Amino acid sequence: MPISASVPIHLTRCSISAVTVPPRLESQLTIPVDLGDRSYPIVIGSGHTAAENDGLKSHFAQTLGDASHGVMIVDKAVSQTAGTSIQAALNGSLDRIDVIEVASGEGSKSIDQLASLWNQLLEAGTDRRSVVIAVGGGVIGDLAGFAAATFTRGLRFVQVPTTLLAMVDSSVGGKTGINLPGGKNLVGSFWQPHLVWIDTDFLNTLPDREYISGLGEVIKYGVIEDADFFDYLDQNIEAIIQRQPEPVQQAVAKSCQSKARVVAEDERETTGRRAILNYGHTFAHAIEVNAGYGVMLHGEAVSIGMQMAARLALDLGLCDSQLLDRQTRLLEAAQLPLTWADADVDAMIPVMARDKKVEHGKLRFVLPDRIGHVDLVGDVPVEKVRTAINACR
Amino acid sequence: MPISASVPIHLTRCSISAVTVPPRLESQLTIPVDLGDRSYPIVIGSGHTAAENDGLKSHFAQTLGDASHGVMIVDKAVSQTAGTSIQAALNGSLDRIDVIEVASGEGSKSIDQLASLWNQLLEAGTDRRSVVIAVGGGVIGDLAGFAAATFTRGLRFVQVPTTLLAMVDSSVGGKTGINLPGGKNLVGSFWQPHLVWIDTDFLNTLPDREYISGLGEVIKYGVIEDADFFDYLDQNIEAIIQRQPEPVQQAVAKSCQSKARVVAEDERETTGRRAILNYGHTFAHAIEVNAGYGVMLHGEAVSIGMQMAARLALDLGLCDSQLLDRQTRLLEAAQLPLTWADADVDAMIPVMARDKKVEHGKLRFVLPDRIGHVDLVGDVPVEKVRTAINACR
Ligand SMILES: NC(=O)c1ccc[n+]([C@@H]2O[C@H](COP(=O)([O-])OP(=O)(O)OC[C@H]3O[C@@H](n4cnc5c(N)ncnc54)[C@H](O)[C@@H]3O)[C@@H](O)[C@H]2O)c1
Ligand SMILES: NC(=O)c1ccc[n+]([C@@H]2O[C@H](COP(=O)([O-])OP(=O)(O)OC[C@H]3O[C@@H](n4cnc5c(N)ncnc54)[C@H](O)[C@@H]3O)[C@@H](O)[C@H]2O)c1
Ligand SMILES: [Zn+2]
Ligand SMILES: [Zn+2]
Repeated sequence: MPISASVPIHLTRCSISAVTVPPRLESQLTIPVDLGDRSYPIVIGSGHTAAENDGLKSHFAQTLGDASHGVMIVDKAVSQTAGTSIQAALNGSLDRIDVIEVASGEGSKSIDQLASLWNQLLEAGTDRRSVVIAVGGGVIGDLAGFAAATFTRGLRFVQVPTTLLAMVDSSVGGKTGINLPGGKNLVGSFWQPHLVWIDTDFLNTLPDREYISGLGEVIKYGVIEDADFFDYLDQNIEAIIQRQPEPVQQAVAKSCQSKARVVAEDERETTGRRAILNYGHTFAHAIEVNAGYGVMLHGEAVSIGMQMAARLALDLGLCDSQLLDRQTRLLEAAQLPLTWADADVDAMIPVMARDKKVEHGKLRFVLPDRIGHVDLVGDVPVEKVRTAINACR
Repeated sequence: MPISASVPIHLTRCSISAVTVPPRLESQLTIPVDLGDRSYPIVIGSGHTAAENDGLKSHFAQTLGDASHGVMIVDKAVSQTAGTSIQAALNGSLDRIDVIEVASGEGSKSIDQLASLWNQLLEAGTDRRSVVIAVGGGVIGDLAGFAAATFTRGLRFVQVPTTLLAMVDSSVGGKTGINLPGGKNLVGSFWQPHLVWIDTDFLNTLPDREYISGLGEVIKYGVIEDADFFDYLDQNIEAIIQRQPEPVQQAVAKSCQSKARVVAEDERETTGRRAILNYGHTFAHAIEVNAGYGVMLHGEAVSIGMQMAARLALDLGLCDSQLLDRQTRLLEAAQLPLTWADADVDAMIPVMARDKKVEHGKLRFVLPDRIGHVDLVGDVPVEKVRTAINACR
């Protein structure tokens, strides 16, 4: 994974149609996700869903031209905003769009909600010429994506993420699924969307805390595989926090590009490459479980987890202190938490030992050696893990 | 689809290990299912599961060598017979085999049963190094296969079919799924097994009516794409009905080979080729719905449906009367029903019009022009359909 892997910037501006499109579309970016016959574009803009633009319609026509029926599965919290815009923007693209509203929150990623969706899809007359349009955060994307993956053994679907986390992470890469009472994301499919449509204007209604939390994953991409992006974030973090359209769009695009690169190398988590996306996540998972799900937002736990991981890497002699310092400064500037006062190392270690990245009881971590590069490190002494956790209290 | 497509007989005898294997293994046949990196073997024998043979163990080692944990999902009706044999034959192949018994019958292909399986897989400590082993008829194969497809986004699985229908049809081709209250097989995945293990001795306990019903699908393969196989069945139908191991094994192998050929050309039902497997099924589906599910067995309905389809083809001038005569004689010799006294054409047509093979209200049928060859025929006049149904009352 040489640093140069992050240099070619594949953001392709929609210059072909630059003459006819309205001004706001000028900055529309398209990130291709390269997965053979499952390839698809991520189209990113600000305000480009507005009904006077034909952007969504023309992308729909290109990728889903023969679809005749849409089922929009939408988070109640954005049904009147993003939901309504998407419906208006698709006016004429489909014979009919049915709308299914789903209650907000992680609780909707359940068997009952899934079963209810399946039955509603049937009632709506859904068949293989239908397309599912998921509008919401990661909860809706995961749930609706899994319903699409399984109804009549697979429907095409479109992701319209409305949280920052969903824009930079959950809507890209094809992981869909639900939770069981016994654990998160235990059931699901790898099922790629046909199109990811990102309008950063949908973030306008997102609460600050959710927005900031999403920045945890954004910064992660800089550390794990894109040093240039880390520099960009360093220089523009203020503007990003202020939600200025241009830098937000750039941050989303670079994050998607980073995730798309990793996913293209390891679509189904078989080569191990995809594991680098879990930087900070073994710690974060233990933090979330110990704090109780929902107390700490995911990106907040990831921020603290990355701090623990960087300290561990430093302690193991894998990186220098400059890496930790730069990461600390950027996370702090992003207003993310760096420590967790309640961290209880004796409670966290057992959770980490049950984590998927543990093989035969040995602790494994994704650890950085420089900004823009991480490795999967096995056989980490548990004492060093304890020290890293305690250093972040 | 030239007749010659059916001529090369790819049955590969296990001659490599012919010196060391016990006598009964001599006639073990392997049919490869050719699906790129999802390819797998169907291994067919009689009594080759017996613990003194290493057949299953060695195939397991070849295809699933790194699996450490098995979950056998087994139909209660065969738990003490086939289930116990499989467990014994796998002794030593896995660190541990957990057993989950499922109630017999179509009712088990439900959301509730699926949810219960997911939770039981979790309790059994199932992870990506686990393998699911489905032992039973099509109900268990479809249900367990779908649980395998979705638990932790995909576990490897082995099909051990114990009904004739499952051996020749449902265990091959990767369709898995469950029913919704509103309709059959509405939810599922395409998920290929890593191995299909067929021991025709498992048929010994199968009730006659179930066995005969399975022959409906067997004869179907002869009509749709293997004229030589049709001839073979013609000559051996008595021995097959008497369940003589050698001809039963041949009939199963040729059927699997036929299905495997079609599936290899159209894994996910996208090219249309897979539709030929539905010969007789548009009629059969209407018969099953009108009779009430469970009254008529599936293969019985398929037998009558094939008769209706052949009559329709004759009436449309697509085939000669010899085709109908030969099909009639073979189905009759197989003790399958040829007519349905209660057929109500006014009740059947509306069901057929809702069938998936109907596009925009026009009736489409898979119809033969000669033994060994069928075509998808659109725009069939409804009057001719009525005549064909009425001729089979
Ligand atoms: N599939 C993947 O690869 C992947 C990756 C990471 C996370 N996830 C999953 O994503 C989920 C978390 O995603 P999330 O953080 O987006 O959570 P979420 O979907 O619950 O959204 C967070 C909150 O914001 C609200 N909301 C959404 N969009 C809004 C908007 N524009 N304005 C105002 N409120 C809005 C929602 O109603 C919810 O209350 C988890 O279930 C996680 O497992 C999946
Ligand atoms: N996946 C596919 O491609 C595909 C194709 C065709 C049918 N199917 C599905 O398969 C199912 C029908 O399969 P089926 O006919 O095997 O039904 P089934 O699984 O219900 O088995 C029929 C009956 O035989 C019993 N049984 C099974 N093995 C036995 C044995 N060896 N001895 C005694 N009793 C035994 C069962 O308990 C059941 O009562 C349907 O749900 C249908 O939708 C799937
Ligand atoms: Zn994350
Ligand atoms: Zn059938």
